[in-house]
Amino acid sequence: MCMAHSTKSSVPDPTEFEIIERYFMPLASAEGLGLKDDAACFRPPSGQDVIVTKDMLVAERHFFADDKPEDIAFKALSVNVSDLAAKGAVPQHYLLGLSLPKQYAEHGWLEGFARGLGDAQKTYNMTLVGGDTVSVDGPVCISITAFGYVSEDTMVKRSGASVGDDIYVSGTLGDAAFGLRAIQAGQGQRARFLRQYHRPLARAGLGNRLTSIATAAADVSDGLLADLNHICSASSVGARLYQAKIPLSDDAKNELAKDTSLWPLILSGGDDYEIVFTARSKCTDAVAKLSQELGLQLTKIGVVTPGPGLELVDCTDKLVQVAATGFKHF
Amino acid sequence: MCMAHSTKSSVPDPTEFEIIERYFMPLASAEGLGLKDDAACFRPPSGQDVIVTKDMLVAERHFFADDKPEDIAFKALSVNVSDLAAKGAVPQHYLLGLSLPKQYAEHGWLEGFARGLGDAQKTYNMTLVGGDTVSVDGPVCISITAFGYVSEDTMVKRSGASVGDDIYVSGTLGDAAFGLRAIQAGQGQRARFLRQYHRPLARAGLGNRLTSIATAAADVSDGLLADLNHICSASSVGARLYQAKIPLSDDAKNELAKDTSLWPLILSGGDDYEIVFTARSKCTDAVAKLSQELGLQLTKIGVVTPGPGLELVDCTDKLVQVAATGFKHF
Repeated sequence: MCMAHSTKSSVPDPTEFEIIERYFMPLASAEGLGLKDDAACFRPPSGQDVIVTKDMLVAERHFFADDKPEDIAFKALSVNVSDLAAKGAVPQHYLLGLSLPKQYAEHGWLEGFARGLGDAQKTYNMTLVGGDTVSVDGPVCISITAFGYVSEDTMVKRSGASVGDDIYVSGTLGDAAFGLRAIQAGQGQRARFLRQYHRPLARAGLGNRLTSIATAAADVSDGLLADLNHICSASSVGARLYQAKIPLSDDAKNELAKDTSLWPLILSGGDDYEIVFTARSKCTDAVAKLSQELGLQLTKIGVVTPGPGLELVDCTDKLVQVAATGFKHF
Repeated sequence: MCMAHSTKSSVPDPTEFEIIERYFMPLASAEGLGLKDDAACFRPPSGQDVIVTKDMLVAERHFFADDKPEDIAFKALSVNVSDLAAKGAVPQHYLLGLSLPKQYAEHGWLEGFARGLGDAQKTYNMTLVGGDTVSVDGPVCISITAFGYVSEDTMVKRSGASVGDDIYVSGTLGDAAFGLRAIQAGQGQRARFLRQYHRPLARAGLGNRLTSIATAAADVSDGLLADLNHICSASSVGARLYQAKIPLSDDAKNELAKDTSLWPLILSGGDDYEIVFTARSKCTDAVAKLSQELGLQLTKIGVVTPGPGLELVDCTDKLVQVAATGFKHF
């Protein structure tokens, strides 16, 4: 963990070292050399590829500055693990880059943040191996790089979908978007929505099981339509979705029953951290079996078309074109 | 390159994709999947370890916001490569995290930044494989994660120095600190100093040659004393340095001849991005041969002692204790 590349003073800020020692060393594994060297060192097992992803989260853009630091940390690691899972990789290690306003180092914020990271890395069976901590006169910025392993040449890309493949999504969609909406409206709301927004759980257990089933996959971070469109673009295909098949929590169903204008939030709201994937139609049984084994809902929501573009069969069986960035015809 | 995890809007900012397509895709290699997937995939050659480092640079702390974007980018990659080199690794790939105020995307800044990155990755023979770009209401923050390979179990750690080992440093020290001083004082100054500050060249060619020679190493980013102290702490030893042997550029010698009070800047100024390493005394000839082969000054500047702490034999042959964070007795 090479800290304190301060160019403005000849003396590295000692609190940076104290921060590492106190909060982050307990999260480190052997590969991180106690966070006391210039770099980390690891070796993937023979026959494994390294999958690496990097997501940056900035206060007031990806989370609220007054969110609980435990939740911010948990989410920061989860969004990276979600990317690994969508590629079929088993999470291993991560690096933490943290640019932090000085006052945050003084008010228990780091304690909560480290606790949240600890919870998350335990959840995903990962360890911290390095990073960098700098002080900033600006919003908190968290830059995590996460590593996973996958058997050679089995990474699930975005580009492998073929016409006729079925489209699946894990879990349910829209709860996090409802959570964000509740926060923005200052409403008290069902705990499920808020929890889904603040502390998403990446589908780490699903990812690695998809390598033999999925032809393409992405995680649902920008919203189902946008992320499915990423798959379609990379695969040069289109997609048809069936609105009636979109998996919803009971709470979300209740909200929709009261106000159907909330549908676009379900399909484009984002922050779901579920996995959308395509699979050959002959794999229907294999997907059902996997769903049962994992105790995780895997719902067939559509089919890959020649395209281009996305279309939706709505609840009245009417076919409507939809834009990847959101609904046009609701 | 998984972009746009926007939680505040249901629509990913299209300019993020445009930025990637226009500026960063030309820098990507196959491992980065065109920066169009959720993650990158690479496989170290058999018998190689992966060395990974992550340095964050923040405007007004690690560089000036009005520095040329070409230089900012070059420096951002160089400081990471410097860490890889100090560990004996051959640079391979990097991920770029960029949090950018909106106005920067509009004024040619990104064009210059991408050009500087392109120069740097060509210099170090690296490719971009992924990352994340977000907009921020705050200072520019650059978070690079860099990967290199080293033969299994040959990473040069900070912890391998033994009493009696010689201490070497590459190149010359202090020029970057003189450059920063000139900028801060608003002085016109010798171009060498400014260039060394703005566009440091990491010792990528040296690093991999050190694996069979060095017992410990670190790059000189925080200043010789601080970085040598990192080695001493990790190795549970001390060090004695000879002031008269510290390698200086002719320009730095001239400055010192005018004002000897600048010495602390040489030894603690930082931003040198040279490599300080220790080697068994029997390796004197091997180091000399390597220096000749590389056409790079490698100067014996001291010896490892039982310690603890650093001491300096000054130019009058007087022994003084020095603190890792700077001089106490000049």
